Amino acid sequence: MPVSRPRIALSRARLSQASPRARLAVALVAMLALPGATTAAPVSPASSPLSAEASDPKLLGWMQGAPPPEDKRIRYTDDDYFSFPKLRWTACHFRQLMPTVGVSRGAGAARALPRRLDAAIDALSFTPTGSSTGMTWAQSLSANYTDGIVVLHDGVVVYERYSGCLDEQGQHGAMSVTKSITGLLGEMLVAEGVIDETQRVGAIIPELKDSAFGDATVKQVLEMTTALRYSEDYADPNAEVWAYAAAGSTLPPPAGYTGPRSYYDYLKTVQKQGRHGEAFGYKTINTDALGWIIARRTGQSVAQLLQSRIWQRIGAEQDAYYTVDSTGTPFAGGGFNAGLRDLARVGQLLLDEGKVDGQTVVPAAAIDRIRAGGNTQAFAKAGYPQLSGWSYRGMWWISHNDHGAYMARGVHGQALYIDPTARVVIARFGSHPVAGNSANDPTTLPAFDAVARYLMERDRGQ
Amino acid sequence: MPVSRPRIALSRARLSQASPRARLAVALVAMLALPGATTAAPVSPASSPLSAEASDPKLLGWMQGAPPPEDKRIRYTDDDYFSFPKLRWTACHFRQLMPTVGVSRGAGAARALPRRLDAAIDALSFTPTGSSTGMTWAQSLSANYTDGIVVLHDGVVVYERYSGCLDEQGQHGAMSVTKSITGLLGEMLVAEGVIDETQRVGAIIPELKDSAFGDATVKQVLEMTTALRYSEDYADPNAEVWAYAAAGSTLPPPAGYTGPRSYYDYLKTVQKQGRHGEAFGYKTINTDALGWIIARRTGQSVAQLLQSRIWQRIGAEQDAYYTVDSTGTPFAGGGFNAGLRDLARVGQLLLDEGKVDGQTVVPAAAIDRIRAGGNTQAFAKAGYPQLSGWSYRGMWWISHNDHGAYMARGVHGQALYIDPTARVVIARFGSHPVAGNSANDPTTLPAFDAVARYLMERDRGQ
Repeated sequence: MPVSRPRIALSRARLSQASPRARLAVALVAMLALPGATTAAPVSPASSPLSAEASDPKLLGWMQGAPPPEDKRIRYTDDDYFSFPKLRWTACHFRQLMPTVGVSRGAGAARALPRRLDAAIDALSFTPTGSSTGMTWAQSLSANYTDGIVVLHDGVVVYERYSGCLDEQGQHGAMSVTKSITGLLGEMLVAEGVIDETQRVGAIIPELKDSAFGDATVKQVLEMTTALRYSEDYADPNAEVWAYAAAGSTLPPPAGYTGPRSYYDYLKTVQKQGRHGEAFGYKTINTDALGWIIARRTGQSVAQLLQSRIWQRIGAEQDAYYTVDSTGTPFAGGGFNAGLRDLARVGQLLLDEGKVDGQTVVPAAAIDRIRAGGNTQAFAKAGYPQLSGWSYRGMWWISHNDHGAYMARGVHGQALYIDPTARVVIARFGSHPVAGNSANDPTTLPAFDAVARYLMERDRGQ
Repeated sequence: MPVSRPRIALSRARLSQASPRARLAVALVAMLALPGATTAAPVSPASSPLSAEASDPKLLGWMQGAPPPEDKRIRYTDDDYFSFPKLRWTACHFRQLMPTVGVSRGAGAARALPRRLDAAIDALSFTPTGSSTGMTWAQSLSANYTDGIVVLHDGVVVYERYSGCLDEQGQHGAMSVTKSITGLLGEMLVAEGVIDETQRVGAIIPELKDSAFGDATVKQVLEMTTALRYSEDYADPNAEVWAYAAAGSTLPPPAGYTGPRSYYDYLKTVQKQGRHGEAFGYKTINTDALGWIIARRTGQSVAQLLQSRIWQRIGAEQDAYYTVDSTGTPFAGGGFNAGLRDLARVGQLLLDEGKVDGQTVVPAAAIDRIRAGGNTQAFAKAGYPQLSGWSYRGMWWISHNDHGAYMARGVHGQALYIDPTARVVIARFGSHPVAGNSANDPTTLPAFDAVARYLMERDRGQ
């Protein structure tokens, strides 16, 4: 079976003749990388350059020692800091490389997560998509380059593991799981009447009136059915993603650069291609447009709103943070970083229909809207062979399976999976060498489904 | 009375012909700026470019709006981000501009600070040094460009004010107060026998054997009586501080740059000038050398050690952070940022001889050693007219007054003042236009002393 090379490696080769700024933008782009960007056949982990164990950042010695030896340093200003295997260190250390804003949990104590660990989970078996041989849950952790995974059943931790760069006190880049956090805030504001989802974006943000977003509705942004001339094909040096990355960069601009110097300034330049509302197109800039809508309607950035409305109310045990552009705007499409248990707490909030200890934190209507999903026909046009029958709504991926499972998905294997029927939440951080979830979906989706059904069965038998 | 122009403004003018990297290093240098760097006559606030009220960052609109207008943006890559009046915004937003590492307070609840506010403090009167007219405490807040100040008496908050960029949830750069935090960690390890202060630095860190630090003792580093060829004169383009700033920069190096690329790599290049132990010389690199000694002896950076040994044990209400170089090494000489109340909690820890709720956090011997002070004759040679009779020990400034007051001092008015006799702690963040405490000492030191004596008297009268 042919194996697709990691796309980031491809782009990097192409970029070696590009400007330093373009090269430095690679990591931002890596954050943007999409589940749909790689539609190639599943990658066998054994064919990858190094296994999860062999690429462990502690084993490879990245950034160890005071100071680390020159050949073990990972710098933001080098062009490979988010390439495999270095990305296995970087995924836990974004704030150490670039500017950020904080999301404070407040001065209270964390809300304890009860624990009743189930030792049987490691041996659970499932069949990876497209495979004829089974795999255990424990094996899937390595296959997926898992940095951390926690499984909640009815709000109780039944499984928790850390590896690679992560431990229970650490933080990890959520990558495109960030989009689902932004989407949750957006749906919350829609449910509360602060945002009218039928409004045109240009009516809310006059600066976007002449851009492609101008005549798109908020609903189309939330479902990513906007028609945008915007390519995230890293192999194409003319792809718009490069201009976007340059706009969001906090590094010195190259001499003579006159382009936009913030995410928002870039959004103003986006042109329309096609008709809004017809097809799902997974494009990160929709989420940043949503972040702008949220900021304009509330006067708060997504970081500030997440802090006041959610992070200080779910009993988080760590502060979280966002990477920012040079205007301090949080990267709503991919810049969120948090502890794993706190990501699980967000999942539990959704599972509990927006309530924490009986108090409404997010209106149930917002979560119901996400769970109901978006337009499956529009979604099908985007061509995700492993996500047949799925849809996208509120920046969440909705499976429409018999359990009504839905999830947040980040490049390199970040995931927040919610099975409302089995009452299971799975939060995972990972640093898979392939920048695209199609590479790990075969060993992820059946594994998540298997553990959820096992836990539901187990309790039924009690 | 002639008024000295802010030194940073002077350096900036000089630097306008310098390389972009050198210009970009200005802010780092500003962080390093010393209480002793400006020995000019006290600056009358009325003569400053803008008063505290007129330079309020909210009033000036820095970084407000989504996105902020171009002329209201403050960028790390512009050379004026830490010049007055922009520094009044920047002082609270370092993490939004540059890479950092966190200092977590842990998952527990903050330890409440009891409050019994004393409304009489605002009207307290004192005579500024060298002045014939009195000033009230309330007036001193504006005179000193105070961003936040809290006064504890016997561990009780009796006074608290915020202004400018700061509020009770915000964080502020501690500037050279960072040195005293590093020094406290160093004295703690000396008291615990982990570090032998009579050892030569070269025996602990072989990489420093051939540098000026090689034959200096740890005690000489703690007292800054090392003899270093190292100038922090920003007006001199050949001053070593520029090479130091370049080494610590996280921005792309200029083409052809072959110099050191971390604080530690720079320290290896420092040459000796004179004889160790004879004179106090306030040079930031001593603190970074101490940070390296701490890291080598404990296997933890100053950020990690502060977190595990102090921040998680004093009931801090916010996480703190350090700015870092490109190796992730915290800037032990000036990179600490924290909430104001938490800085006050550090002061209370020292006032309480290292105990929190009866538990020893820092050995009393370490604090006694700081309070005893260093060599006053060596200190006198440095020539601080306003600090006559003072000394420096464990990176703290010891007044040797009749109350045994001692303090941490940061450029632009950061202060942590401890009066053991009056049982008073004063924590202050500021953003004074002049980079040097001699400009605000006349309206600071008598004010701190006055409030401490007032509180002691007040309780005696009860």
